[in-house]
Amino acid sequence: MSRPNKAPFSGVTEDLKGRAGCYKQDWNHGFRSGLRILAPTLYIFFASAVPVIAFGEQLSKDTDSALTTVETLASTAICGIIHSIIGGQPLLIVGVAEPTIIMYTYIYNFAKNQPNLGEKMFLPWAAWVCIWTAVMLFLMAIFNVAAILNKFTRFAGELFGMLITILFMQEAIKGMVGEFSAPDGSNQSQSTFQFQWLYINGLLGFIFSMGVLYTALASRSARSSLYGTAWQRSLIADYGVPLMVILWTALSYSLPSRIPSGVPRRLFTPLPWEPKSLQHWTVAKDLFSVPTVHIFLAIVPATMVAGLYFFDHSVASQMSQQKEFNLKNPSAYHYDILVLSLTTLICGLLGIPPSNGVLPQSPMHTRSLAVLKRQLLRKKMVQTAKEGMMNNATSSEVYVKMQDVFIKMDHGGDSVSAHKELKDLKDAIIPEGNGSGTVPEVFDPEKHVDAYLPVRVNEQRVSNLLQSLLIAGCIGVTPLIQKIPTSVLWGYFAYMSIDSLPGNQFWERIQLLFITPQRRYKVLEGAHASFMESVPFNTICTFTLFQLIYLLIVFGMTWIPVAGILFPLLFFFLIIIRQHFIPKYFDPSHLRELDAAEYEELKGFTPDPSVCEDESVRSGDAQPGYASEILEEFTTHRGELKRRNSTFRDGRLLQLNSIKMTRELSRAPSRLT
Amino acid sequence: MSRPNKAPFSGVTEDLKGRAGCYKQDWNHGFRSGLRILAPTLYIFFASAVPVIAFGEQLSKDTDSALTTVETLASTAICGIIHSIIGGQPLLIVGVAEPTIIMYTYIYNFAKNQPNLGEKMFLPWAAWVCIWTAVMLFLMAIFNVAAILNKFTRFAGELFGMLITILFMQEAIKGMVGEFSAPDGSNQSQSTFQFQWLYINGLLGFIFSMGVLYTALASRSARSSLYGTAWQRSLIADYGVPLMVILWTALSYSLPSRIPSGVPRRLFTPLPWEPKSLQHWTVAKDLFSVPTVHIFLAIVPATMVAGLYFFDHSVASQMSQQKEFNLKNPSAYHYDILVLSLTTLICGLLGIPPSNGVLPQSPMHTRSLAVLKRQLLRKKMVQTAKEGMMNNATSSEVYVKMQDVFIKMDHGGDSVSAHKELKDLKDAIIPEGNGSGTVPEVFDPEKHVDAYLPVRVNEQRVSNLLQSLLIAGCIGVTPLIQKIPTSVLWGYFAYMSIDSLPGNQFWERIQLLFITPQRRYKVLEGAHASFMESVPFNTICTFTLFQLIYLLIVFGMTWIPVAGILFPLLFFFLIIIRQHFIPKYFDPSHLRELDAAEYEELKGFTPDPSVCEDESVRSGDAQPGYASEILEEFTTHRGELKRRNSTFRDGRLLQLNSIKMTRELSRAPSRLT
Repeated sequence: MSRPNKAPFSGVTEDLKGRAGCYKQDWNHGFRSGLRILAPTLYIFFASAVPVIAFGEQLSKDTDSALTTVETLASTAICGIIHSIIGGQPLLIVGVAEPTIIMYTYIYNFAKNQPNLGEKMFLPWAAWVCIWTAVMLFLMAIFNVAAILNKFTRFAGELFGMLITILFMQEAIKGMVGEFSAPDGSNQSQSTFQFQWLYINGLLGFIFSMGVLYTALASRSARSSLYGTAWQRSLIADYGVPLMVILWTALSYSLPSRIPSGVPRRLFTPLPWEPKSLQHWTVAKDLFSVPTVHIFLAIVPATMVAGLYFFDHSVASQMSQQKEFNLKNPSAYHYDILVLSLTTLICGLLGIPPSNGVLPQSPMHTRSLAVLKRQLLRKKMVQTAKEGMMNNATSSEVYVKMQDVFIKMDHGGDSVSAHKELKDLKDAIIPEGNGSGTVPEVFDPEKHVDAYLPVRVNEQRVSNLLQSLLIAGCIGVTPLIQKIPTSVLWGYFAYMSIDSLPGNQFWERIQLLFITPQRRYKVLEGAHASFMESVPFNTICTFTLFQLIYLLIVFGMTWIPVAGILFPLLFFFLIIIRQHFIPKYFDPSHLRELDAAEYEELKGFTPDPSVCEDESVRSGDAQPGYASEILEEFTTHRGELKRRNSTFRDGRLLQLNSIKMTRELSRAPSRLT
Repeated sequence: MSRPNKAPFSGVTEDLKGRAGCYKQDWNHGFRSGLRILAPTLYIFFASAVPVIAFGEQLSKDTDSALTTVETLASTAICGIIHSIIGGQPLLIVGVAEPTIIMYTYIYNFAKNQPNLGEKMFLPWAAWVCIWTAVMLFLMAIFNVAAILNKFTRFAGELFGMLITILFMQEAIKGMVGEFSAPDGSNQSQSTFQFQWLYINGLLGFIFSMGVLYTALASRSARSSLYGTAWQRSLIADYGVPLMVILWTALSYSLPSRIPSGVPRRLFTPLPWEPKSLQHWTVAKDLFSVPTVHIFLAIVPATMVAGLYFFDHSVASQMSQQKEFNLKNPSAYHYDILVLSLTTLICGLLGIPPSNGVLPQSPMHTRSLAVLKRQLLRKKMVQTAKEGMMNNATSSEVYVKMQDVFIKMDHGGDSVSAHKELKDLKDAIIPEGNGSGTVPEVFDPEKHVDAYLPVRVNEQRVSNLLQSLLIAGCIGVTPLIQKIPTSVLWGYFAYMSIDSLPGNQFWERIQLLFITPQRRYKVLEGAHASFMESVPFNTICTFTLFQLIYLLIVFGMTWIPVAGILFPLLFFFLIIIRQHFIPKYFDPSHLRELDAAEYEELKGFTPDPSVCEDESVRSGDAQPGYASEILEEFTTHRGELKRRNSTFRDGRLLQLNSIKMTRELSRAPSRLT
C-alpha cells in the first residue's frame, strides 16, 4: 500500500482537536431535542438489532454454538456505548457485521482441527487474533493510513458489496435447506426428527422465509403508497422489517396444536445467565495456555481482520458524512480507527466477536437525524413566520426574523451561506419589490418552509448511546428472542441480500449485459447512471465482465477450507490492479464515469427545491413521513447518494414542439401504468 | 324488460343474410393464411382449456363428481364445433363458464335433497332445465330481445364482473383450505389422511397455489420485459398461464420419494371410457322418469340460466367486435342466441353442462387475429415496397402499389377509406412534392409499414373450429390432466380473480375510496379514467358505495341454500334501477362519465401512429411480439378497450416554460423508477 505522507499521530491529534471543539455540543443538542430524539433512536435500534440477532444465529450455527446471539448483542452494545461516548464521529453506528462472522467461522474451523487448540481453546486463540488486530489498527491510526482510503474506489466497494450480497443469499438458502434435515449434532431419535415432522418443518420454514422476504420487501415501498396516513406509511416504511419479523413469529404460534413444540425450529441461544454463556467473560485467563506458535500464527487472520475492519469502518463513516448532509462538525477517521482498535482489544479479551462500523445503518442514522432537524427547524420558523404575519409585519421583516431563527439553530452556520440557502424561501415571501409590503396571500408558512428548508443534521451522541443501551437491553430479553423461528431469519438474510442490490452500479451493469440490444433504449428512458450515455457499451461490457470474473474468484476463494481466510487479500490487491493495471486498458474519461476515484467525488443530484415545493404543496402532507420521502428519493438503499441522469425521453422533450409533445405525452399513461 | 319493437324473426333473418354473405370467405381466409393460423388457434386453445379444466374440478367438487372435467371439456368441444360451423359470429369463443358451474351446483344441491329426485335423477332434471332454457333463448332470439342489450350498462357489467372475481377468490380459498382436510366422502382410515400427511398436503398445496398465482401474474408482464428476444417474451406473455400450470405440475413430481403417492392431492376425474363417464350420454332416456311437478319446477332455474346466458353470450360477442378492431363482417347477436339455444338443448340431452360465450377469451381471439392479419399485410406490403424501390420507381408509384395490395387484402375495404387510413404511410414515402422523385433514404419499409398499418382482423372460422377440436382432443388425454395437483388449480382460480380486476372501473373506484385525500393527486398523475376529473369526488363516492352495497347483497344471496339460485334476478332488476331510480339522484352528465350507456359507446383512445412509429423505429424489433405489445397497450385484461386521460401532469407540462419543465423533468427518474 502506498505510504501516507503525514507525520505520525498528526491525523489522530487533528481529529481529536476537531471533535473536542464540539464535544459538549454533541451532548447538549441531543438532550435539547427532547423526546423527539427517540424517533431516530428507535429507528436505528431496530435497524441494527435484527441483523445482529441474525448474525448471532449464523455464528452459532457455524461455531457449534461456541458463540451465539448473546455474544453478538453484547459486543454491539459494549462497542456502541464506548464509541458513542469516546468515539470521534457519533453519527457512525457500530455492530457485529458479516465480515466478522466469516472471519470467526474460519478461525473456529481452524482451531477445531488443531490438535493442541481444539474447540476449547478457540476463544483464547480468537482473543489473540483480536489483540494482533488491535495492534495493527493502532499502527494504522497513528500512521494516518486512513489517507489512502481514496484509493479504494467504487470498483472495490461495489465488488465487496456484491460479495456480501452473495454470502447473504448463500446463507439464506443453506438455512432454508437445513430446515428439512435435523441439525447436526442433535439427537436423531427425537420424535420431531421423524421424516414427516422434518418435512413439515422444512415446508413451514420455506413459507415463513418467503413470507418474511416478500412482506419485508413490500414494506419498503409503503412510504410512497397511496393508502393510509403519512404517519402510518412512515411507520411501516421505517419499522417494516422488525414488524414483519414479529408478525411472522406471531404467526408461527398460530399453528394447529397437534404439531410438536419443536416445529417450526426456533432460535437456539443459551440464556445469558446460564454457565454456557458466562464462561466467555473469563477467557482472558486462558490467554497463555495457547501454544506460542499459535499465538504468532494468529497474526495471519489478524492481518485480514484488520484490513477488513479498517475498510468497513472508514467507508461506513464516510457514508454517514456525505456532503449533501451539510454536516457542521469535523470528521475523525484516524481517531475512530484508534477507538476501533481499543474496542477490538476489549472484545477479544471478553471472548466475544468485535464490532465495527456498519452499513447501511450509519447513513440511515444520519438521514433520520436530518429528518429530526428538519422538524425542529420547521416548527420554530413557521411559528416565527405566523407571529410576524399576525402583527402584519412587512414581508422583509418576517423573512429576516425567520433567517435569524435559522442561523441561530444552525450552529456554526453564518448569515452568508444561510442567505444563499434560504433564497427560494425569501423569494416566496418577497416575490418582488423591497419587501415593504406585507407577506403575499399565497405564502403558506407550513408548506413553503417545508419546501425550501435546506438539509441539516441534528449532530449529537445521545441517539447513538441510547440505541446501544437498548441493544444491551436485548440481552435481558433473550427468552423473547428464542421465540423467533430460525426460518424467519433465513428470510431476513434473503431480504438483506436483495435489498442491498438497488443502487449498486455493478449490479446495474450486470443486468445490462443480459438486456437485448433492441431494448436498451428502454433503460435510457428510465432513470439511469450517467455512464450509460457517456461510455460505449463495449467498454461497459468489458469492465463489468472483468469485475464479475474477479467477484467469482473471490467468492470461490471463500469456499477454500483454511486458506479461504486470505480472501481479503484479493481486495487489497484490487488497489494495485486499479491503479496500475486498469488505466492501461480503459480511457480515463470512461474510468471516471464507471469508477469515480473517491466516494466523496460522487455527486448526488442535489434535490431541486421545486421538487419539494411541488410535492408538498400539492400533497399538503408535511409530516415527518414526507420529509424522509424526499431524502429517500435521492439515496440508495445502502445509503449512498444516487447520481442519476434525467431521462433520455425527458431530455428530448425539451426540443419537441407542442404537437409532437402531445403525441409523446398521450403515451405516458401506458408507460406509467 | 322493455319491449323490443321490431317484428318477430326480423333480427335473426337479418343476421342470417348478413353472415351468409361472407360464409364462404370465413373459410377461405382461414385456410389461405396457411400454417400461421395455428398461432391464434393455440393461443385461444390454451386460454380456454385451462379454465375449462379448472371449472370441471370445481364442478366435480360441488356435485360429488356427478359431473367432472370430462363433461366440461366435452361440452366446450361440442358447442365450440357447432358454433364455429353454423354460428353467426366466428370470433366469439364458447365454453363452460363460472355462471354455469354456479347454477349447476344449485341444481345439484336442490335435486339431491328432493326425496323423489335424489342424486340419481340430478342429470335428467338438469336436462329439463336445459330444455326450458333452450325454449326461452329461442323466444328471445326470434323476438329480437338482443335489442335491449344496450340497457345493460357498465354498471351491471362491472358488478357482474366483480361478483365473478369474488366467487373465484372464494373458490381459491375454499380449495386451499380444503387441502388441509380429507375430501368428504373419502375413506378416512387411508394412510394419506393421517394428520401429518394431510398437513404436508396442505402446506404443499399452499406453496403450489401461491407459486402458480405469483408466477402466472409475473408472466403477464413478460412482453414488456427488458430481457429475452421478442419471440421469447411473447411466448411467455401468451402462454404464461398454461406454462406455469405445466411447470408446477412437473415440480410436484420432484418431491422426495418417501411421500406417499396421494400427496399432493391431484385432479380427480374418471377416464372418459369408464362406465361412470359413459352413463351421461344416455340421460335422455330417463327424461320422463322425472316427476311432472319437477319438470315444471325446472322453469325457475331455467329462467335464471337463460337470463345469464343471454347476457354473457351477447356481451362476450360485443367485446370481440369492438369497433377499434375495424371488423368488416356484420354482427349476428339475434342469430347467435338461436344457436346458443340449440347447443344448450343438445348439452342438456347429453347430460353435460352447456357452454356459452366466454370472456376474456372472445376479445383475446379477435386480438390475436388482428396480430395475424397485421403480419400478413405487413409481409406483402413490405415486399411490394422493396420491389418498387429496387427498380427505383417513383415514390408515388411505390405508394400506389402498396395501397392496392392493402385494398386487395382488406376485403370489403374501399380505396377511399384505405387512402385515409394509410395517410401517415403515404407521408412517409412522399414527404413533399408530387412524388415524382424516388423514395426518400430515411424510409425503411420494414419499420414504417409496421408503424402505420391500421388495425385489421383476419375474420374466419378456422381458428375457432381448430381450437374446439383441440379441446375435444383433451378428453383423450385425461390421464395427463389427472396429473395436475388440485392446488395448482386453486392458484389458478386466485389468478383469474386478480387478473380480472385491472381495467374494471368499479374496482378502480373502490380503491379510490381508500386513498387518503392528500394522495389523490398521485392518481391524477398516473393514467386514470376520465370521470376522475369530470365528476366530483362525493358523487363518485356515493355511486360506488351504492354499487358496492348492491354487490354485497348479491354475494350474500349466493350463499342462501336454495333460494340463492335466484341471484340473477338482482341483475335483471338492475336494469330497472338504472333506468328509473339512479337518474333521479345523479346528474346525467356525471352518469354518462361513470356509466356509459352502452358498451359500444366506450371510446378506447385510438392508438396514435406516432406511438408505433416511435416504438418500433427505436426498438427496431418488428416481430409478432411487438404488434401485440401495441394492441395490449390499449386493452384491459378483460379485453375491453381502455378509455384513459392523458395524465394531469402531462396536461400541465404543455403550459410550462422550459425552465419549470426542466425542474419537473428532473423529477421524472424518481417517478418512473
